[in-house]
Amino acid sequence: SGVAMMKFKSPPVNSLSLEFLTEFSISLEKLENNRACRGVIITSAVPKIFSSGLDITEMCGKSMEHYTEFWRAVQEMWLRLYGSNMVTVAAVNGSSPAGGCLMALSCDYRIMAENPKFSIGLNEAQLGIVAPFWFKDTFVNVVGHRIAERSLQLGSLHPAPEAHKLGLVDELVPEEKLMEKAAAVMAQWLALPDHARQLTKTMMRKAVLDRLVAHREEDIKNFISFVSKESIQKSLRMYMEMLKKRK
Amino acid sequence: SGVAMMKFKSPPVNSLSLEFLTEFSISLEKLENNRACRGVIITSAVPKIFSSGLDITEMCGKSMEHYTEFWRAVQEMWLRLYGSNMVTVAAVNGSSPAGGCLMALSCDYRIMAENPKFSIGLNEAQLGIVAPFWFKDTFVNVVGHRIAERSLQLGSLHPAPEAHKLGLVDELVPEEKLMEKAAAVMAQWLALPDHARQLTKTMMRKAVLDRLVAHREEDIKNFISFVSKESIQKSLRMYMEMLKKRK
Amino acid sequence: SGVAMMKFKSPPVNSLSLEFLTEFSISLEKLENNRACRGVIITSAVPKIFSSGLDITEMCGKSMEHYTEFWRAVQEMWLRLYGSNMVTVAAVNGSSPAGGCLMALSCDYRIMAENPKFSIGLNEAQLGIVAPFWFKDTFVNVVGHRIAERSLQLGSLHPAPEAHKLGLVDELVPEEKLMEKAAAVMAQWLALPDHARQLTKTMMRKAVLDRLVAHREEDIKNFISFVSKESIQKSLRMYMEMLKKRK
Repeated sequence: SGVAMMKFKSPPVNSLSLEFLTEFSISLEKLENNRACRGVIITSAVPKIFSSGLDITEMCGKSMEHYTEFWRAVQEMWLRLYGSNMVTVAAVNGSSPAGGCLMALSCDYRIMAENPKFSIGLNEAQLGIVAPFWFKDTFVNVVGHRIAERSLQLGSLHPAPEAHKLGLVDELVPEEKLMEKAAAVMAQWLALPDHARQLTKTMMRKAVLDRLVAHREEDIKNFISFVSKESIQKSLRMYMEMLKKRK
Repeated sequence: SGVAMMKFKSPPVNSLSLEFLTEFSISLEKLENNRACRGVIITSAVPKIFSSGLDITEMCGKSMEHYTEFWRAVQEMWLRLYGSNMVTVAAVNGSSPAGGCLMALSCDYRIMAENPKFSIGLNEAQLGIVAPFWFKDTFVNVVGHRIAERSLQLGSLHPAPEAHKLGLVDELVPEEKLMEKAAAVMAQWLALPDHARQLTKTMMRKAVLDRLVAHREEDIKNFISFVSKESIQKSLRMYMEMLKKRK
Repeated sequence: SGVAMMKFKSPPVNSLSLEFLTEFSISLEKLENNRACRGVIITSAVPKIFSSGLDITEMCGKSMEHYTEFWRAVQEMWLRLYGSNMVTVAAVNGSSPAGGCLMALSCDYRIMAENPKFSIGLNEAQLGIVAPFWFKDTFVNVVGHRIAERSLQLGSLHPAPEAHKLGLVDELVPEEKLMEKAAAVMAQWLALPDHARQLTKTMMRKAVLDRLVAHREEDIKNFISFVSKESIQKSLRMYMEMLKKRK
């Protein structure tokens, strides 16, 4: 059918570890280079969670080299997904904070299970960290400046119905209909001739993609200098302890 | 009253031919230079159609010189209409795809007949072609980035009620009330002192106008290189055949 | 509690005179430098009016030096308020045209008394003057390009319910609940760690702030050249006469 499905399966919460990101980028590149593949649906194989976002263990007590490699992998994932020539549909079947939200935002279309217990958002500010400018640019392109400004400052996690109202996701469906709907949306997008659709997508996204490409090394330096701060390391360790106790 | 009315009357579908565009630009320039004229309402004298957009016969099997002249006329129309010092109101009394939609988008206010059989949108992608960047910029300025991204990629033609919901048109009225409403809106806009309103309009639109002015020759070259492709010529010919058979 | 309250008290209508603006900027700077202060609520002590905007007497029959000093004070107020590191909440308890609207737009959150007799908007065009580009930029960042374009050209004053629908204010509450609600919103914003929130705010607003900083002297010259015109002086004098007669 020309449509690939990528199911995130990295329990317990599909954290975006270096390994996960690397595998994701390689898989996406393979699909991109496969002329038979015209679209990809991303979803989760883990119940209740789409992706919990960047893996905090990759940012804690590691070397500069590791931080560099990790951040480059985060950038790479986004550059490939936001800039994909394929039609990309996110079937958001669980909560999707921070980096998980970014992955959904980077697709062409977002369908979310209508369960109000599932939430989505760029909640970095809640953890005392700042979403990078290209997370912000991607967000603004979807919801506009005002909603992004407020949501980013508050680090909001929006329950599915609110996310839909804000335009953060395009559609809500009952969870059991999610994959069926994703396939239907994909079919609608694939009805268009690829070439014109791809050039149109590039026209819409190029400015924001180019901005990271132009500032990639600077962005890595910013991340390292931020994550190396003792205050940040401390708050990340505390956050990890809290997560461990929860389990 | 200081208000001019331009009624498109180029049956069967008000295609934007080189002749139509040239006449339109000249008429608009005359009104612009007429100090007694402060506003213009554009509408159609052809039932059920506002304008079907660019005339495909101008893009098929013609010389490079012709393509250049044609595309320059399309640019000229938009530069004059989007940059007009007059108050411009579109009374959209029929369907308005592609270039027809651009004309409506370029006005200060859009009123559409509430007939759900009438649709409007930049549907270029459906024909395998790409809307130029300034069509896109004009669209984004009206409906925002996200709606434009989705609508342009899908080449959507939005039925009037949906167009209204998306903000693509400002207001829907029963067809028989369209001209009355257009006159009332015009009166509201003309109640403002011209000079301040004109400077404000320029402030809002200058960035987007300047972008085409700065890249005008490049944009013509892009059009020619695109339209000269055998694949595009073939699909335009097929499209024209289909239109002929329909009649 | 770390929250300051600034109550405008310059009867009859809280005009933004040179003195008012200077005092406001000094007060804000003091709060900004007070590490115990994390947020500020701005509201009015004058019934039915939040602020009537720039004081027209400062623009009428004064020297070039005075115009320069006045306009610099307007810029200074905005640069400090829009760029504040504190959480800023506007409790709009009365009408708020022009410069008053700008002050509200510059806060992080706007709550308005739901009285439909209170209106808010950048209505400069009604007086035959043009809102400066940074008023416009601030407005666009809140309501988007299309709503700003229409509202600025028409010089619209939006009654509270309409302002809420357009996104110009975030929330409407009965007047007697306004301060309670402002305090609750402030508490919600202050629940976030300051540093991440401040960096996020800067990321969202820096481009627009930098634009005025880069063109500040030019913007002053524009104001002077505009306000010095005999036609503008005449219409401002007429407007002042009208205001005096109304009383």
